[in-house]
Amino acid sequence: MISLIFFVFCFFCSQFSHQALALDFCVADYAAPMSPSGHSCKDPSKVTVNDFVFSGLDVAGNSSKIFKFGFKSASDTELPGLNGLGFSLGRADFEKGAVVPIHAHPDASEISLVLDGKVTFGFIASDNTVYQKSLVKGDVFVVPQGLMHYAFNEGETPAPVIVGFSSSKPSVQLLDLALFRSNLASQVITSSTLIGAEEVKRLKAIFGGSG
Amino acid sequence: MISLIFFVFCFFCSQFSHQALALDFCVADYAAPMSPSGHSCKDPSKVTVNDFVFSGLDVAGNSSKIFKFGFKSASDTELPGLNGLGFSLGRADFEKGAVVPIHAHPDASEISLVLDGKVTFGFIASDNTVYQKSLVKGDVFVVPQGLMHYAFNEGETPAPVIVGFSSSKPSVQLLDLALFRSNLASQVITSSTLIGAEEVKRLKAIFGGSG
Amino acid sequence: MISLIFFVFCFFCSQFSHQALALDFCVADYAAPMSPSGHSCKDPSKVTVNDFVFSGLDVAGNSSKIFKFGFKSASDTELPGLNGLGFSLGRADFEKGAVVPIHAHPDASEISLVLDGKVTFGFIASDNTVYQKSLVKGDVFVVPQGLMHYAFNEGETPAPVIVGFSSSKPSVQLLDLALFRSNLASQVITSSTLIGAEEVKRLKAIFGGSG
Amino acid sequence: MISLIFFVFCFFCSQFSHQALALDFCVADYAAPMSPSGHSCKDPSKVTVNDFVFSGLDVAGNSSKIFKFGFKSASDTELPGLNGLGFSLGRADFEKGAVVPIHAHPDASEISLVLDGKVTFGFIASDNTVYQKSLVKGDVFVVPQGLMHYAFNEGETPAPVIVGFSSSKPSVQLLDLALFRSNLASQVITSSTLIGAEEVKRLKAIFGGSG
Amino acid sequence: MISLIFFVFCFFCSQFSHQALALDFCVADYAAPMSPSGHSCKDPSKVTVNDFVFSGLDVAGNSSKIFKFGFKSASDTELPGLNGLGFSLGRADFEKGAVVPIHAHPDASEISLVLDGKVTFGFIASDNTVYQKSLVKGDVFVVPQGLMHYAFNEGETPAPVIVGFSSSKPSVQLLDLALFRSNLASQVITSSTLIGAEEVKRLKAIFGGSG
Amino acid sequence: MISLIFFVFCFFCSQFSHQALALDFCVADYAAPMSPSGHSCKDPSKVTVNDFVFSGLDVAGNSSKIFKFGFKSASDTELPGLNGLGFSLGRADFEKGAVVPIHAHPDASEISLVLDGKVTFGFIASDNTVYQKSLVKGDVFVVPQGLMHYAFNEGETPAPVIVGFSSSKPSVQLLDLALFRSNLASQVITSSTLIGAEEVKRLKAIFGGSG
Repeated sequence: MISLIFFVFCFFCSQFSHQALALDFCVADYAAPMSPSGHSCKDPSKVTVNDFVFSGLDVAGNSSKIFKFGFKSASDTELPGLNGLGFSLGRADFEKGAVVPIHAHPDASEISLVLDGKVTFGFIASDNTVYQKSLVKGDVFVVPQGLMHYAFNEGETPAPVIVGFSSSKPSVQLLDLALFRSNLASQVITSSTLIGAEEVKRLKAIFGGSG
Repeated sequence: MISLIFFVFCFFCSQFSHQALALDFCVADYAAPMSPSGHSCKDPSKVTVNDFVFSGLDVAGNSSKIFKFGFKSASDTELPGLNGLGFSLGRADFEKGAVVPIHAHPDASEISLVLDGKVTFGFIASDNTVYQKSLVKGDVFVVPQGLMHYAFNEGETPAPVIVGFSSSKPSVQLLDLALFRSNLASQVITSSTLIGAEEVKRLKAIFGGSG
Repeated sequence: MISLIFFVFCFFCSQFSHQALALDFCVADYAAPMSPSGHSCKDPSKVTVNDFVFSGLDVAGNSSKIFKFGFKSASDTELPGLNGLGFSLGRADFEKGAVVPIHAHPDASEISLVLDGKVTFGFIASDNTVYQKSLVKGDVFVVPQGLMHYAFNEGETPAPVIVGFSSSKPSVQLLDLALFRSNLASQVITSSTLIGAEEVKRLKAIFGGSG
Repeated sequence: MISLIFFVFCFFCSQFSHQALALDFCVADYAAPMSPSGHSCKDPSKVTVNDFVFSGLDVAGNSSKIFKFGFKSASDTELPGLNGLGFSLGRADFEKGAVVPIHAHPDASEISLVLDGKVTFGFIASDNTVYQKSLVKGDVFVVPQGLMHYAFNEGETPAPVIVGFSSSKPSVQLLDLALFRSNLASQVITSSTLIGAEEVKRLKAIFGGSG
Repeated sequence: MISLIFFVFCFFCSQFSHQALALDFCVADYAAPMSPSGHSCKDPSKVTVNDFVFSGLDVAGNSSKIFKFGFKSASDTELPGLNGLGFSLGRADFEKGAVVPIHAHPDASEISLVLDGKVTFGFIASDNTVYQKSLVKGDVFVVPQGLMHYAFNEGETPAPVIVGFSSSKPSVQLLDLALFRSNLASQVITSSTLIGAEEVKRLKAIFGGSG
Repeated sequence: MISLIFFVFCFFCSQFSHQALALDFCVADYAAPMSPSGHSCKDPSKVTVNDFVFSGLDVAGNSSKIFKFGFKSASDTELPGLNGLGFSLGRADFEKGAVVPIHAHPDASEISLVLDGKVTFGFIASDNTVYQKSLVKGDVFVVPQGLMHYAFNEGETPAPVIVGFSSSKPSVQLLDLALFRSNLASQVITSSTLIGAEEVKRLKAIFGGSG
């Protein structure tokens, strides 16, 4: 029996030497270089189950005082086993009165599932059509890649939302921060959006922009 | 002012004729042919916000009496706006004592978020290493594409789980159903798995297989 | 010699029956369904050289009176041979004083080549860093996919610019039109951007928005 | 037991309605439109095992009298189950003295396995380095996508070769046929290759070109 | 003539400095980090023709005593020139009575060509339909990505088979080894497959599993 | 107000630590390893706007004395911000009488825009059909990936042409250089193209080939 098992072992294991583990997955090695396809792969012999586990999506992330909205991410930055898999998860929490300011994910589509409360989601297509819907518990909303979208809590209770992305580390560009927190020159903002100079000044003060 | 608006309109709208909407998204037209890249696109002029909305992920799907496990899917079959976006969502419900039988998704990685209860998740890599972890509320678990995995409720309470997939319509292959519900000849099963003939007969009776 | 040629012919031509032409290219058939991968392919026997040719990029497109900026596109809508190839070209013309309003391409990176004049280009990364540069004749500027960007003519002369995209039919989302030409409710705009209600009203009047 | 089986059935089968089969595969429907991603998918209910089977790669294809070389293809044209899978197989047969004329596959890399005989394979990289090797039975040779390559039988016996491609329907462009069998004007050939006018005339006579 | 050649040289070679070779191919550098897209590229100046050649597919690999089946691989682990090309080759040898145990390739479709003998191939789709066929010399069989499949020699003679994969380094997950050679707890196996505890014990003894 | 801004900052910036910049772009780090997906990414903190800018496409590249044709490239070798974006630009200059010798881009489709003059472009499909057209100022011509193509100035004036590619660093294989500048053995050229031995000798003298 020993030799039989030996042969079974040697027959199949011969396929599993030489970095073969990396074919099932490419756990992120944050210390090595990144490439356009993602992080370098961690040495397979050092991968553990914890590389595939993340904890804490039961608790809301820190909330913005202005928008009353918090976000917590389980992307390949927090969850190295997601590297190269092309999707990730997060949790958004809407306090009463919360608004998710208009933003876009340049490299990801988004799917949101309302766990509780009443939230309105909307996105704007490139022909300026608005696709907006009021959602309740159990409802799901899809935002195609790169399009501006927003959401707000229209109920009386907090609304937790689970969010999926079609990227292992979705990028996010917030309209207000891009314009009014950056050092984009006020005159450029005014001329390229027609938002009035006074309004730009007011918004830069709120968001901390310079320029 | 009228003509000014007219010019703005005509300048930009000239880019939005001729099926241009289909560039933001390709909502599934179930009546037209499929291609390797997914469903054909619905006529953009007939797309509504409801193509991006799905309801009912707050309620468990029908449960299997054997495995005490239910699943409800929000894939591009139920949610046409997901077509071509490469990801989807679902909801798994573990009753007390539930087991998710060993299965694989040939075309998708999976990410699971435990909403409540205590669930053990595991997957088996191609070098036969088992990556298994006991999860509680707020924990997330990643299963790389195509690998066999399983889960079971080890707590005393029902456990709802949100599941994300890196495919708009993940395929699922259940070990037991593939072997014991199909018409795969018993002798083939026995010789290609070494599971005993009597055991195969017993399992075919449970799962309804022929052959 | 005849039979020799015949054999050469039959040997190789046997590989070119049965839609084989479609492997070199997939010229757009605008009448057939689209899929997530693009337009259906035209019958190869009806493809001509004109499917690969477009004329008119020597002349500016219609210009916006507000922004003094015109654009003409050579995408797979105008040039069916581009279908499935994943890139396209266009021509932007900046009159004196022209501004390209802030916008993003949800599905394409952009590369611009200044043919004449003096144009400042800028994009904003998702960490709100502004990458801006003043360009002259012969300079090239790259904008990564999905990020907000803008440009303006800072010279005294018209500036023609050739633009390449990493999409056969790039989508474009203009900030002002998305917000102020759509029917997005003014209150939603105000709460999700903090732009004041009066300013929103003023901008909706300029761009023709409702809601 | 009946109801138990019923529940098992209904739980899982609920995932397999509505074209779900097409997720495992997309068997080519030659009558429906093609897209950049390949052929449309055949109605899954009409798919049989024969869509995944091809016969005849044990016999050589018709041979060219000039080059003493035959080829038989198992691509998605002959084997509809290959559609969308991104690879295919073929068989090349070298008679004694055979030469595979210089050609390239615009959309595929190639891997060749010599079953018998002695064959020299070579490809030319874009820096004009020649990578050439004499192969015998059991040897494998890789040609990266799109590069010109050639082979010849340097032994005394016929040499059968199995060839794999990284495309479901590899395209092939033969130098001689492109230049001397097409209707490319002789003067264009001469000026764009510097091959002498007399030589072009001679080669057009051999390959049947006009122009 | 010298200066003329010089100009030709300098004109074109200016395009081939600075790692330009890496564009034709990315030969695996096993010492450098891997990424989700594969191995790092070897310094182009050190690439030789031998990076594109592999020998020994004329001889069977070591055979399993249990299954009477051997496999030899020409993947990017053995053939560094395959790195990044997305396909590979192998050789399977069926002794008389051989069985290829049920397995799946999580990241690759498979195409098999029977060189001799009589072999039955089968795969199971995710709707539990079995696609099975008896093949002889010259027959080809396709298994779509990630689906469980098996094969057995039903003839009286050895059967060599050439196998192609749509991955440069296909992963393989064998049902028996995943369950009965791993340290997966017996109780988990029993509950997640319903295979009886005694049978699990017997199979673990055969395959050497623990847990 | 201070604390309010602080909260806004911390809420959003928490998403932008840990290499997050690399999600918007992956600027080439020429000193680090390449992968099949491109160059490694430069440390985001060292990226500047100059990584996205290239100058000099207003001036022709060095011209070949034989073909009277010059080319200047703005690929990811010259413009590190293009890394991973999948497209690039270049400039071709046709002197009077210029010919672009027959060549192919193994990994890229091409789109050409004539800025001035009169240029004929052509490509040859794999069924040996020639697609050729005489273009003037403002005309655009598409060449699908990997196909042989050529161009010549048929006018009396120089013709500058802007060229786009569907690759960040397009490879180029010139027929004449591959055959007559390499060390490909003359006998191999003769037998694999049927070009006469004398002609091969003459052409090798022109292009500097050995072998």
